[in-house]
Amino acid sequence: MIRLNEAADFLLAKDRFVILSHNYPDGDTLGSSTALCRGLQKLGKHAMIRCSDEIGAKYRYLFEGVTPEDFTPETVVAVDIADTALFGEPLLSLYGEKVDLCIDHHPSNTGYAARSYVDPKAAATCEIIFDLLRLLGVELDVFLAASLYTGITTDTGGFKYTNVTPRTYRIAADLVETGCDAPGINRSMFDTKSRAHMELERRVMDTMEYSHNDRIAVVSVTQQMIRETGATEDDMDGISSIPRQVEDVLVGITVRERAEGGYKISLRAQRPVNASEICAKFGGGGHPGAAGCTLQTTLEEAKAQVVAAASAYLKQLNL
Amino acid sequence: MIRLNEAADFLLAKDRFVILSHNYPDGDTLGSSTALCRGLQKLGKHAMIRCSDEIGAKYRYLFEGVTPEDFTPETVVAVDIADTALFGEPLLSLYGEKVDLCIDHHPSNTGYAARSYVDPKAAATCEIIFDLLRLLGVELDVFLAASLYTGITTDTGGFKYTNVTPRTYRIAADLVETGCDAPGINRSMFDTKSRAHMELERRVMDTMEYSHNDRIAVVSVTQQMIRETGATEDDMDGISSIPRQVEDVLVGITVRERAEGGYKISLRAQRPVNASEICAKFGGGGHPGAAGCTLQTTLEEAKAQVVAAASAYLKQLNL
Repeated sequence: MIRLNEAADFLLAKDRFVILSHNYPDGDTLGSSTALCRGLQKLGKHAMIRCSDEIGAKYRYLFEGVTPEDFTPETVVAVDIADTALFGEPLLSLYGEKVDLCIDHHPSNTGYAARSYVDPKAAATCEIIFDLLRLLGVELDVFLAASLYTGITTDTGGFKYTNVTPRTYRIAADLVETGCDAPGINRSMFDTKSRAHMELERRVMDTMEYSHNDRIAVVSVTQQMIRETGATEDDMDGISSIPRQVEDVLVGITVRERAEGGYKISLRAQRPVNASEICAKFGGGGHPGAAGCTLQTTLEEAKAQVVAAASAYLKQLNL
Repeated sequence: MIRLNEAADFLLAKDRFVILSHNYPDGDTLGSSTALCRGLQKLGKHAMIRCSDEIGAKYRYLFEGVTPEDFTPETVVAVDIADTALFGEPLLSLYGEKVDLCIDHHPSNTGYAARSYVDPKAAATCEIIFDLLRLLGVELDVFLAASLYTGITTDTGGFKYTNVTPRTYRIAADLVETGCDAPGINRSMFDTKSRAHMELERRVMDTMEYSHNDRIAVVSVTQQMIRETGATEDDMDGISSIPRQVEDVLVGITVRERAEGGYKISLRAQRPVNASEICAKFGGGGHPGAAGCTLQTTLEEAKAQVVAAASAYLKQLNL
């Protein structure tokens, strides 16, 4: 573990950067890489961004402030990547053993890089990049702000999760002061749904069943629904939070049929229920609020088993 | 119009306050009244809150920091009330002509009070109360913070609307620094839906129709749906934002059957479309992003007329 000013000194001493984002890229890894890339370019350095997966259309605006460059990289920086397993291919083969610097906020960071700065108290890696740019002497501008705001708002669910700190709000204040279009970013990240998503959501809501005195709600997503709505992986975003949103529901369960067979269970829980303890019974895991596991059985059997486990858990707590 | 320090001096000079919230009370009017009431009580003054309508269960926690008192009021303060028409009964008869001080952020404030402080740049009246409490010498605590945070997050749609300023975030930072449960407040304000709401949403989504090359989406809500789901006025929250959420939709229209006959139209628009210009054709009005009107006709005819007007509007803009 190095300190953040050491990370800044390292970046100032080096050039020809390739900045890596994790696979299935999200707002924080792309916000971090685009902000750092622009920051380094503003310092007159050469920098480019690489990701093993395609960047979704909704993230394209993040690249408006980045100048595309092509060169042979000398310095490898990974942002928001906890583990080389998240590099995906081809990045894992190309850079897995060659990361010079990693900047991250995941407590699970494996320390795979030659030097790492990991701050688990940061709500988003973009919070760290905000500080890092200041240490690099890069002045905030509307492009940097749009990137950093995107990472912060997406990793906090729009300032709603428990990882938000006073600092998160103070950084957001500085970012919107540049005039970046925060309402537009929030709208496109949170309030825009594809027609396929809308249609899938409607069908999923049709499957809602309640049990344990309405404290448990369960929905299912079948391959047929996915096929018929034309939903992609992106369209699945937010589906698993539907059952937990119902008033009085403590455990929301989404049972999703996998293309390769079996069922993926996503469990969302309200305090005092710990979702990961319920999923652990099926060999799964996660966080207290959100956890998952996989069951090799029929849809009806999968629903019945998980509901029974959740119900037994609630009974233990006298709920 | 007085200055905010004059409002503070007025409050410091007076006692026995009744603080009025508007009818159909929301998070900002209740956050403002509970914070101001607690603030005045902390100064050793007598203060109580009155509202013409019942306070919804989800707002009860706002009153945890307020001591219930009963006395004959001497000083009448209205918070977040733009017009005496929003007092409702019995408050209008009791206090309509007797308001000593009004604190508000609505540009449409009619100036009905003996003295008014109106700041339209404040995203929420709670932003003004935050400053006012400081001028009164009241120290922030977790109860005040929960009230003020509630008003700010609800009036900004969870920090998503265009009314959010750097100041909004900076105030939020100070509020969460007290340790108030901002994630819990956001969850109960935004991520919790009654079963009736969930069921209504499902049925409304079943009525979605697209036109004008998918740039217009229209849904309907009938009295039968409301009856069969047991939905209340509270359960209607957010329903009109459903059609506009669909990707590429510029105009989202909700046609809602009224109990007294006819149809209430809620129109939500994305830039560059101005929703209020479309509604003006039917004698309605509102803001660029959200507007409404009423039509005395059948459901099919109402949908057809509004869709035709929206389509003509889009054509004019070459959209």
